Amino acid sequence: MSTLSERILGAPAGAYVDRDVDIAFAHDGTGVLTLEALREMGVERLPRPGRLRLIFDHIVPANTGTTATLQAELRAFARVSGIPLSDAGCGICHQVMSEGLVRPGMIVVGADSHTCTAGAFGAFATGVGATDMAAIWASGGTWFRVPETIAINLSGNLSGAAEPKDVALTYVARLGMEGATYRALEFAGEGVRGISMDGRLTLCNMAVETGAKAGIFYADDLTLSYLADYGVKASPQVPEECRYERTLDIDLDDIVPLVAVPHRVDTVREAEEIAGTRLDQVFVGTCTNGRYEDLERFARIVRGKKVAVRTLVFPASRAVLSRAIKTGILADIVDAGCVVGPPGCGPCLGAHAGVLGEGEVCLSTANRNFKNRMGVGGEIYLSSVATAAVSALAGEIAVPEVA
Amino acid sequence: MSTLSERILGAPAGAYVDRDVDIAFAHDGTGVLTLEALREMGVERLPRPGRLRLIFDHIVPANTGTTATLQAELRAFARVSGIPLSDAGCGICHQVMSEGLVRPGMIVVGADSHTCTAGAFGAFATGVGATDMAAIWASGGTWFRVPETIAINLSGNLSGAAEPKDVALTYVARLGMEGATYRALEFAGEGVRGISMDGRLTLCNMAVETGAKAGIFYADDLTLSYLADYGVKASPQVPEECRYERTLDIDLDDIVPLVAVPHRVDTVREAEEIAGTRLDQVFVGTCTNGRYEDLERFARIVRGKKVAVRTLVFPASRAVLSRAIKTGILADIVDAGCVVGPPGCGPCLGAHAGVLGEGEVCLSTANRNFKNRMGVGGEIYLSSVATAAVSALAGEIAVPEVA
Repeated sequence: MSTLSERILGAPAGAYVDRDVDIAFAHDGTGVLTLEALREMGVERLPRPGRLRLIFDHIVPANTGTTATLQAELRAFARVSGIPLSDAGCGICHQVMSEGLVRPGMIVVGADSHTCTAGAFGAFATGVGATDMAAIWASGGTWFRVPETIAINLSGNLSGAAEPKDVALTYVARLGMEGATYRALEFAGEGVRGISMDGRLTLCNMAVETGAKAGIFYADDLTLSYLADYGVKASPQVPEECRYERTLDIDLDDIVPLVAVPHRVDTVREAEEIAGTRLDQVFVGTCTNGRYEDLERFARIVRGKKVAVRTLVFPASRAVLSRAIKTGILADIVDAGCVVGPPGCGPCLGAHAGVLGEGEVCLSTANRNFKNRMGVGGEIYLSSVATAAVSALAGEIAVPEVA
Repeated sequence: MSTLSERILGAPAGAYVDRDVDIAFAHDGTGVLTLEALREMGVERLPRPGRLRLIFDHIVPANTGTTATLQAELRAFARVSGIPLSDAGCGICHQVMSEGLVRPGMIVVGADSHTCTAGAFGAFATGVGATDMAAIWASGGTWFRVPETIAINLSGNLSGAAEPKDVALTYVARLGMEGATYRALEFAGEGVRGISMDGRLTLCNMAVETGAKAGIFYADDLTLSYLADYGVKASPQVPEECRYERTLDIDLDDIVPLVAVPHRVDTVREAEEIAGTRLDQVFVGTCTNGRYEDLERFARIVRGKKVAVRTLVFPASRAVLSRAIKTGILADIVDAGCVVGPPGCGPCLGAHAGVLGEGEVCLSTANRNFKNRMGVGGEIYLSSVATAAVSALAGEIAVPEVA
């Protein structure tokens, strides 16, 4: 009688356990610190390099000589250590994970806070610090305190222009940015069935914005069919009766387009309330909303029209980009006047591309709108893809009307 | 009995003339300085803003808050002054110029050294400093010293894997980096006919690498048919007997794949001689070789294969990108493992994307390999697109064998 996190970690909430991990990854930002820590620890050989991975996504291609030199060091380290490397252009680490690497029941750690994204596959996936990651790479495992679980009980179906992102903003607003600290968010209820895998990834992705350690869905037929496309066979996970610390009920029929306003993710308004807010930039992409389904939704809205404000679109991975080219939606996006960047985190972290100027306002499909994150003095609003699309066309925050 | 430059400027070589200009453009880098100079000059109104243009290509999307703020200022200035703005994602200024803006017989000035590219259309096009540009924007014209002309007399036809870029490297090597200072290079001879418009743009682009003020082709049937695709009607320019300062004969049948080695554009070797040189990066793009024909040639070689080294491809304009998506060649490029960046200068200037690390070696299709240009301590080799493509597949400099 366990929650899914308890089942995967093999102990009841509150217990401390030592566990091997199935996948342990870092990106170009944290990888540098992990490598430095390994050197300080004097570690020379990594026991199971096949379970580790380096993924370059944060600053690709390199923006300065220093970045390039650090990335070259990481490349050399990966080669010598036998760590698989997903180099610049492969995509965002969390998306790469979701393209056939993560399987139900796995324990996944990543040196990035949004590692919780992978919970969409019924894995226990959580972010760790870069130094912790060094210890994990050196030993093959780590300790966990098994988290208490909050159920997000979904009923009904999304309608109109509402998207999984609006559901994510709903639970973040209701729980608050520290409302689920060290908990797992388990998505349950009849409403789960109608949420696509891309949507489930969006929902798990934002779990950490409530302070949660993990967001998690049970693997069901949809999960299995998605994984089968990557040649991965898996079994469904059947929920059993269990004790949740708390249950948050969300009726999907009630969800409307929402926007998180500066500078907190949990300060959420209906798009309707702030419609007309002037924009300098729209950004579509990230580990929250840069997947194929997102780009497809965006393209459907901007097709044959022209954006009224600079609009940056960064696909979440090479696979997403390649598919978007072949199905024609990328042409729609480019012809609408958008700037398409290479697969990766892009403007989200405000480090190298699409940085905001003083006083500039951006509507972004990302997961964080912290002060100065995308540029000192810039303001970030967070929304769904549909809201971003209609707002790009309007040049100001607008309300999408159909799905 | 005049050279084409003399005819357009309306005076013999050596004369000083005052002329209105037909187009005067700046980019995001020089535009900032032009605006600053205009403010210092106290200029409030620009007489003919329709002839001016701002094109954002050097750092797009903005890499820092400072860049973003400067670009925002330029945007506001363009709006208030009535200057047409090609914002981030439209493409490289010289490519934007070549998509229906420049016409035979025009006088074009740009606040960028490679403004000579536009000479491919039978225009007199030359780069000026950002402060000079401010004076031109304020007055609508400027003075020129009519240049002496060196004829580049082309005979025969390119064969095998040789490209117009190899012809450009040939004339730069033969004239030297200061061999044509303040001259115009006039491309003439039977061989001209077999060079496509994209190839002519490549040939004019590199004129400044010899110190030349301009590179220029006579508008012929090919020029007219190219312009007609943009809805532009023009008349051919018929060459007349004239006095060249000097004639450089190039037999196109003799051209083989060439590479300019670090750190001078005129230090050129046969690709054969330096085959096997280890590479860290290959870069395809720029105002020299980022046009459709270039991407098409690149795609033909990498299609169905995988690059062995990080390979960055930046289309020269949105129109180039859009066409490459629709014809399927962009999918070939992405699926071969390349990183495709947004239309613009990209890594060429070493400012924001694809910067080289210490000791890294890049083979680039650009026009300059000056020390530290793409990153401090990096080394740049310059080649054709075909040479770049086979080298990307090999991970080292290699020799292309077929066109």
